[in-house]
Amino acid sequence: MSDKTTLIDPLLAQVRIVLVETSHPGNIGAAARAMKTMGLSQLCLVNPKQFPCAEATVRASGADDLLARAHVSETLEQALEGCGMVYGTSARSRSIDWPTFSPWDVAQRVLHGTEDAPAEALRGEVAIVFGRENSGLDNEELELCSARVLLPTNPDFSSLNLASAVQVLAYELSTHSKRGQAEVHNHVDETYDPLATQGELQGFFAALEKYITDIDYFDPAKPKQLIRRLHRLFNRASMSRSEVQILRGIITAANKAIGK
Amino acid sequence: MSDKTTLIDPLLAQVRIVLVETSHPGNIGAAARAMKTMGLSQLCLVNPKQFPCAEATVRASGADDLLARAHVSETLEQALEGCGMVYGTSARSRSIDWPTFSPWDVAQRVLHGTEDAPAEALRGEVAIVFGRENSGLDNEELELCSARVLLPTNPDFSSLNLASAVQVLAYELSTHSKRGQAEVHNHVDETYDPLATQGELQGFFAALEKYITDIDYFDPAKPKQLIRRLHRLFNRASMSRSEVQILRGIITAANKAIGK
Repeated sequence: MSDKTTLIDPLLAQVRIVLVETSHPGNIGAAARAMKTMGLSQLCLVNPKQFPCAEATVRASGADDLLARAHVSETLEQALEGCGMVYGTSARSRSIDWPTFSPWDVAQRVLHGTEDAPAEALRGEVAIVFGRENSGLDNEELELCSARVLLPTNPDFSSLNLASAVQVLAYELSTHSKRGQAEVHNHVDETYDPLATQGELQGFFAALEKYITDIDYFDPAKPKQLIRRLHRLFNRASMSRSEVQILRGIITAANKAIGK
Repeated sequence: MSDKTTLIDPLLAQVRIVLVETSHPGNIGAAARAMKTMGLSQLCLVNPKQFPCAEATVRASGADDLLARAHVSETLEQALEGCGMVYGTSARSRSIDWPTFSPWDVAQRVLHGTEDAPAEALRGEVAIVFGRENSGLDNEELELCSARVLLPTNPDFSSLNLASAVQVLAYELSTHSKRGQAEVHNHVDETYDPLATQGELQGFFAALEKYITDIDYFDPAKPKQLIRRLHRLFNRASMSRSEVQILRGIITAANKAIGK
């Protein structure tokens, strides 16, 4: 296993994406690609219209290992064998008496759990089931699900593409996974170019104020509103030391140009 | 306007999805579909390889009104005209000193703002820019962006489909939007200091570059690294229109002082 591979949260390997009676093989390939970009690996196909298929491989665009390892079954029951939690997806709210979660909630429950319960992926395999392109999941299939995922869509146009729906769930799982978090933190924490110190900033502000006074842009006898606005602007930019040096360099050259 | 339509947060209408030099027209259609399912409506195409195109319409699958209204331009600058905040998307972290946000953060900043600043969509139009299928955005294009969006991907397989990337951002914007609260502001709120448009920023950059050339601080024959760093610094500050006017005023006074 490479170092990179170990960055994927092993809990993601516990998640099955189950596609029921997919009509277009291109959608199967696109779903595999969506999964792999987000670190998911278990694809289950229930009675696909056409599989394997060249179009699926093309649309997988490098995620063909997921297609090769895909588990194909005749029925949804078979695809769910051994699973703990099963989520059925829907783009519209169809039932009132069913626990319904957002994709964010699902990722949270699967990978982190709730106040009352540990991560679902620690307690068994989790399935997320996606229905047919045109008609979704039927009632019998929904009965096999423990809960519903409701994808938030435009009430005037809820026709989410199948692979896009997979993408949204996979994305939420990825951002809730441990790798996702580690990456974001690393990114924020790494400081290659050190930030300017307050002293360096004050030195820059003083030089700027003196220069704009010298060129009669600013009158120090008048209120300091302009100076405050400049401070606010440059403070907001969180400048690095080297950026402050560039701006100091410009002011030095500008002073030379006016003989100061 | 139907009752249903009013359920879409009007701030979503302030968001432009900009696709740069898309090769596959199918991706344009799929992006339009992804947008419409999430309540977005403004699609801008920069120099698409083939558009309009039957394949785009097929993949739009009912979102062809977005294709019909799509704004097509030759350059990214044209597509960004009048925009305040501009986010450039990337699936990998490429730059070390660029403000980088997750899709969640972007949706939060655009629709709700931060502790220090109001929602960006209340201060002007917001663009989210997506690069070419194979090579993303080039450095010059990234220079036009105020910040980066980093899509969290599998380090071993970051090949996110273009429409899938649009789907992820559109999904986050949708989940952050105020559904059913159509009474929020319809337009840019005048009580906020509006963000500078890209055109105003470019005008400031041009004036700054000319001035530092005139005072011999910058040699235009040499590499543009310095200019890039200045662009990055000021892009990061997300300047308001009046702040850009202050800086333009300083440059005008500085030019007068050297007899220009």
